[in-house]
Amino acid sequence: MTRIMYLSPVVHRSGHDELFADMVRHRKRADTEVHVTCLPDSAGRFNHVEFRSYEAMVTPHILQGVRAAANEGFDACVIGCFYDTALKDAQEISGEMIVTAPCAASCDIASSLSNRFGIIVGRQKWVHQMHSTVVANGYENRLSGFYPVGLGVTDFQMDHDTTAERLMQAGRKAVEDDHAEALILGCTMEIGFNETMARALDVPVVDPATAAFLRAEHLGSNRETCGWKPSRKWSCEAPDEAEMQALGVFDVEAPFGNRIVVPAIN
Amino acid sequence: MTRIMYLSPVVHRSGHDELFADMVRHRKRADTEVHVTCLPDSAGRFNHVEFRSYEAMVTPHILQGVRAAANEGFDACVIGCFYDTALKDAQEISGEMIVTAPCAASCDIASSLSNRFGIIVGRQKWVHQMHSTVVANGYENRLSGFYPVGLGVTDFQMDHDTTAERLMQAGRKAVEDDHAEALILGCTMEIGFNETMARALDVPVVDPATAAFLRAEHLGSNRETCGWKPSRKWSCEAPDEAEMQALGVFDVEAPFGNRIVVPAIN
Amino acid sequence: MTRIMYLSPVVHRSGHDELFADMVRHRKRADTEVHVTCLPDSAGRFNHVEFRSYEAMVTPHILQGVRAAANEGFDACVIGCFYDTALKDAQEISGEMIVTAPCAASCDIASSLSNRFGIIVGRQKWVHQMHSTVVANGYENRLSGFYPVGLGVTDFQMDHDTTAERLMQAGRKAVEDDHAEALILGCTMEIGFNETMARALDVPVVDPATAAFLRAEHLGSNRETCGWKPSRKWSCEAPDEAEMQALGVFDVEAPFGNRIVVPAIN
Amino acid sequence: MTRIMYLSPVVHRSGHDELFADMVRHRKRADTEVHVTCLPDSAGRFNHVEFRSYEAMVTPHILQGVRAAANEGFDACVIGCFYDTALKDAQEISGEMIVTAPCAASCDIASSLSNRFGIIVGRQKWVHQMHSTVVANGYENRLSGFYPVGLGVTDFQMDHDTTAERLMQAGRKAVEDDHAEALILGCTMEIGFNETMARALDVPVVDPATAAFLRAEHLGSNRETCGWKPSRKWSCEAPDEAEMQALGVFDVEAPFGNRIVVPAIN
Amino acid sequence: MTRIMYLSPVVHRSGHDELFADMVRHRKRADTEVHVTCLPDSAGRFNHVEFRSYEAMVTPHILQGVRAAANEGFDACVIGCFYDTALKDAQEISGEMIVTAPCAASCDIASSLSNRFGIIVGRQKWVHQMHSTVVANGYENRLSGFYPVGLGVTDFQMDHDTTAERLMQAGRKAVEDDHAEALILGCTMEIGFNETMARALDVPVVDPATAAFLRAEHLGSNRETCGWKPSRKWSCEAPDEAEMQALGVFDVEAPFGNRIVVPAIN
Amino acid sequence: MTRIMYLSPVVHRSGHDELFADMVRHRKRADTEVHVTCLPDSAGRFNHVEFRSYEAMVTPHILQGVRAAANEGFDACVIGCFYDTALKDAQEISGEMIVTAPCAASCDIASSLSNRFGIIVGRQKWVHQMHSTVVANGYENRLSGFYPVGLGVTDFQMDHDTTAERLMQAGRKAVEDDHAEALILGCTMEIGFNETMARALDVPVVDPATAAFLRAEHLGSNRETCGWKPSRKWSCEAPDEAEMQALGVFDVEAPFGNRIVVPAIN
Repeated sequence: MTRIMYLSPVVHRSGHDELFADMVRHRKRADTEVHVTCLPDSAGRFNHVEFRSYEAMVTPHILQGVRAAANEGFDACVIGCFYDTALKDAQEISGEMIVTAPCAASCDIASSLSNRFGIIVGRQKWVHQMHSTVVANGYENRLSGFYPVGLGVTDFQMDHDTTAERLMQAGRKAVEDDHAEALILGCTMEIGFNETMARALDVPVVDPATAAFLRAEHLGSNRETCGWKPSRKWSCEAPDEAEMQALGVFDVEAPFGNRIVVPAIN
Repeated sequence: MTRIMYLSPVVHRSGHDELFADMVRHRKRADTEVHVTCLPDSAGRFNHVEFRSYEAMVTPHILQGVRAAANEGFDACVIGCFYDTALKDAQEISGEMIVTAPCAASCDIASSLSNRFGIIVGRQKWVHQMHSTVVANGYENRLSGFYPVGLGVTDFQMDHDTTAERLMQAGRKAVEDDHAEALILGCTMEIGFNETMARALDVPVVDPATAAFLRAEHLGSNRETCGWKPSRKWSCEAPDEAEMQALGVFDVEAPFGNRIVVPAIN
Repeated sequence: MTRIMYLSPVVHRSGHDELFADMVRHRKRADTEVHVTCLPDSAGRFNHVEFRSYEAMVTPHILQGVRAAANEGFDACVIGCFYDTALKDAQEISGEMIVTAPCAASCDIASSLSNRFGIIVGRQKWVHQMHSTVVANGYENRLSGFYPVGLGVTDFQMDHDTTAERLMQAGRKAVEDDHAEALILGCTMEIGFNETMARALDVPVVDPATAAFLRAEHLGSNRETCGWKPSRKWSCEAPDEAEMQALGVFDVEAPFGNRIVVPAIN
Repeated sequence: MTRIMYLSPVVHRSGHDELFADMVRHRKRADTEVHVTCLPDSAGRFNHVEFRSYEAMVTPHILQGVRAAANEGFDACVIGCFYDTALKDAQEISGEMIVTAPCAASCDIASSLSNRFGIIVGRQKWVHQMHSTVVANGYENRLSGFYPVGLGVTDFQMDHDTTAERLMQAGRKAVEDDHAEALILGCTMEIGFNETMARALDVPVVDPATAAFLRAEHLGSNRETCGWKPSRKWSCEAPDEAEMQALGVFDVEAPFGNRIVVPAIN
Repeated sequence: MTRIMYLSPVVHRSGHDELFADMVRHRKRADTEVHVTCLPDSAGRFNHVEFRSYEAMVTPHILQGVRAAANEGFDACVIGCFYDTALKDAQEISGEMIVTAPCAASCDIASSLSNRFGIIVGRQKWVHQMHSTVVANGYENRLSGFYPVGLGVTDFQMDHDTTAERLMQAGRKAVEDDHAEALILGCTMEIGFNETMARALDVPVVDPATAAFLRAEHLGSNRETCGWKPSRKWSCEAPDEAEMQALGVFDVEAPFGNRIVVPAIN
Repeated sequence: MTRIMYLSPVVHRSGHDELFADMVRHRKRADTEVHVTCLPDSAGRFNHVEFRSYEAMVTPHILQGVRAAANEGFDACVIGCFYDTALKDAQEISGEMIVTAPCAASCDIASSLSNRFGIIVGRQKWVHQMHSTVVANGYENRLSGFYPVGLGVTDFQMDHDTTAERLMQAGRKAVEDDHAEALILGCTMEIGFNETMARALDVPVVDPATAAFLRAEHLGSNRETCGWKPSRKWSCEAPDEAEMQALGVFDVEAPFGNRIVVPAIN
């Protein structure tokens, strides 16, 4: 059995957690157990992290959640934001647990299906940072561009018709004008739109939450069968456990604001 | 059920096919069916493709094998050589089937486990071409280097003690001198050595045949559950089916030299 | 005397061979002998190789042709397709003979005449692969872009007025909109149009078949006078001759489908 | 008058604050006022941030400090760690105040004095992250390498003789073996060693705390005289002030653990 | 006291020298002395250096001016052209004096204020060379583009309304279409327009003469307080002084065509 | 007939001019006429240009020589220094004449014969600048490294045994340690050593003066037969002829210090 945690790095969004739990129920392998979680009230009122400074504020809580997941023995954990918020920080203290995230996962899928892809995002504000992540992950030469639709994170699930229309318009621009051969939806809250778009545009469209979850399941499963656990050498060195205990801030009670368990089916 | 073909792009190596079939039996998910194949006698006497010119000569046979797999309805196919021989050619005519290969798969795994990895290869001859593949796949900044051990493809399974010793020596050099944090074995015939090395060097060591198979299973399964099939847009456009029929060389009888079926367990 | 082979990597196009023989007659030095050839019937019905899979199918025949040219003692050989099809494969087994091709040759000329050039191609399908070749050859920063005109390889010589008009339109776009300072015609079948375009647009326009032939003559001549033959060290190592003989597929009878000899004039 | 805040992103190190205050007293212009600060007790027991996870934990406190500095009307603020910890996050919410940091500042100085420089750091652990910062800042082609001396952040000021000897050894290696033409000390706690090294090795040696302070003074002064304030356009957009207030975590009482005021001299 | 020379690499433009002297008066620190100079009559009739060949012709005179400045004991010298004409040549023989120039200085400022900037230039002719300088200085990933306005160097100060209008138009294009977050005026003769533009477009706009002067003052001052002088190691090695004397062309009488002294204040 | 000028950018070296004239006699095509020239006395006492500042001082004289060559109707001109001194400046004002130089020419040859080459130079001083040229010409990924032998330009032809021994030692290091597959001699004064080295090391060794001359002959000949003349568009725009006349410094009497004519043989 593979055990995966899907952690949304925002607070108090039980409705939204249900969106991801639903996705997981449809996509997971039978023998995978998934816990869909989000940040606790102590992380403040962040229901989106569109700003670097917002990410910075919730990052300690992400680390605490990841650390808790590692302590509970999960095989892999997803940090569910397309900024791949705090991914490298979390990987440092995840022990033997894999940590992954949507941007890395989506770019891997899109580049396995095409030579060139476009990423459809909410606002121009996001582009510079996400572009840096795409470059750091080695996909610069695959990218046709970023396509902002003028919607914030919390807008995507408001009026589904508007969202669908704007995403389609951006997708068409990417494919027709810039010769994208596949598309990535660049926000986990764009969930639910990729299949219709793929049919309409006749190119693969990657939902990032799904891609991240399936990557976690893949890498988490490999960990079990092949022993492929995170390196702890050189730049991957973790802090000394005793020092971490003494610092007293990595392990906390109640690190999650919500937890939906999607059980394995034997 | 996911159906995977593992195709070795060489001829008449039933003993070697069994090596890969064994690996598959230990690593596959229960509900995956795998066919382990190699090239037919018509492909000549190539029991290794260390040279670009040898790859060139077997490439038409690889395409015929991949095409046959697509026609048989496989979800994904592995071309089992660390040169990722003919990968882009094969992807062009694989229809809705995923095609993947060891170098791409291994780099993905190694970079999910570390920031920097080394690749242990047979001979200096291979390095330039493999380096180009690593760069093309976007992993240039991850690479500590290539480490040749002075063995050819057909030598690795001759004297296991010699092989083990040389691989270890190269691995230690990569980790200690060049600060590699993970290792990749850069030839599918280096199979069987990674677990001992990982324990001895305390870094993850990726076996490329295993990585390629598991990536095929992951992407093949995603194809089913998410509809993520190869793009056929722009540079991914396939030849016209009628033209291909008229050319008369893509579809042949008996495209495989051997076939070991590893069934799904329901 | 310098002896050059110009090999079109397609089948049965005696008319087209004549196009290239004409070009050679007008451009060669007096003391150069040129053989203009194409692939034999055994290579199938490929009269264009717009697809990677088509290139893959004719590649063994290209290698056999190049190998025959080397055995006949030619100084240099051109593989006459702007994809530079199988160039690196052929260079591996060309012994002391130089092998070159149109994309490499054209980029060298265009960058000797300008800081920035555009490449006018047939279809969008070609762009990704040709872009990779331009990048691999080190000309990425010189490139204003690729300009597809919506014609296939076999269309260019059909209706010369249509071809001329479309090439001019694309060339004007490259120069006026993207600040190209020189142009390359990105298909050997675009032969015959560059001089008119150069006059009309007042920038240098490079014909790729001509560029490849003249580069072969230059490098072939240098081989004689300076002893500059292909390296056989490290990645340039050729297979062992005995092993190649044993494999029995590199040297064949009748490797060419046509041969026009343009003699030296003493 | 220019007003600068120098903020060490660690806790309770009044002795160390005095090191930086001393440096400021010797280096500042007469009409510059400097406040040397560090993080408050509420930021925990972090007296070094050698790990990404430690940086992550103190980052919210850095943002609160930077925000306080902006509210107090400082012209510029230094985040005094060679990881340039949280620099981009802090710049987002600094309003009209400049924020800078040691790695960016040191690379600018070193590249104004030489074509190629080496960076002497504490431990191999640091190298990957710092290398990424150097690359992101555009200095990749200037870098001869990183030279770890096997000391942690808190070791540098322990035994000055040992530190001096190790830094010299690393510096000599950079200059003699790797042809560095200038050196950067890659930790603010390496303060006090650069002048002796410069004399002994006859190359410029940059102290990062000094470089960061002088850059802050330069940019802070330019802000006054030329109006060159941070852009708030596109990726530089700050969160809405009302939303920040509602979130309630950016502005706190007592954001600093210590404050040494170095006054302007009129 | 810091002493700075601002050298315009053109001839006989006392009116223009006054423009830069005015700027210096408004921007300099109290205790900085500045000499604003230009080339002597012996340098010919060059009142602009828009061409590489013009730069080449005045370069010996620039070196003579820089050498004279070094001999007079200046702390730093600006070569006042946005091509950063002869910067590396001059740095080689500047002894202990800093040499800097507008493009390097402006890019540093713009990247301290934003993630992405555009450069507004006179003519398309300039773009390729200036782009090379921006790339060589490590700012390639910061650049939104170059924006030519169709004016030559000597046109900018002719009709201020026309200039202002064209610069604004180009600036708006950079910001609105290409998402520039800051702007650089790419010619020292564009002086006087940046403040109005900054207000109108609400992004920072960098005047290059000012940026170069302030960078010289910053680096010249650091030289005094920190001993940060140019490296003379490896590629920074200067010619032997005796050999230079023997060559007899580096040190000349009357190296300047004009000299306005802006004195330090008490 | 093709007419080539070979211009050494130094003064008064008739003996050395003879070295190049000899090379030309052995390498040129029958119907090529070559003038071997150097700078006039008015260019000063520069018998080497190892320093950027020395290059700067002779550059106006190079331009005058190139301009004279263009006016005399030469097809192509070589600037005979491995720094490719003033190449881009000279290309701007060469009218319809081709200008080329040794580094560009040698890299082209070496990369046509191998995948990876090393460059053997005189002193470490040269490396940074030559590396920049190699990168600018697109050969960065081909380069195994630079190998200084501790000799200045004027030393190479002093004691041939010492020179031969040092070049061989450096060449062996490049090939054996760094896997170079071909070598370039990185100074035109290293003339006369490449053939022995090639035999001893069994890799191609490129003499840069020869490579530059043969490239000039190739491009000069193409100019005649194909009309491939320098672009004068965008960044290749030349100054206005009337303005150049008015400036009065481009066209001078007696631009050459020596002239050896190697006639065509009809």
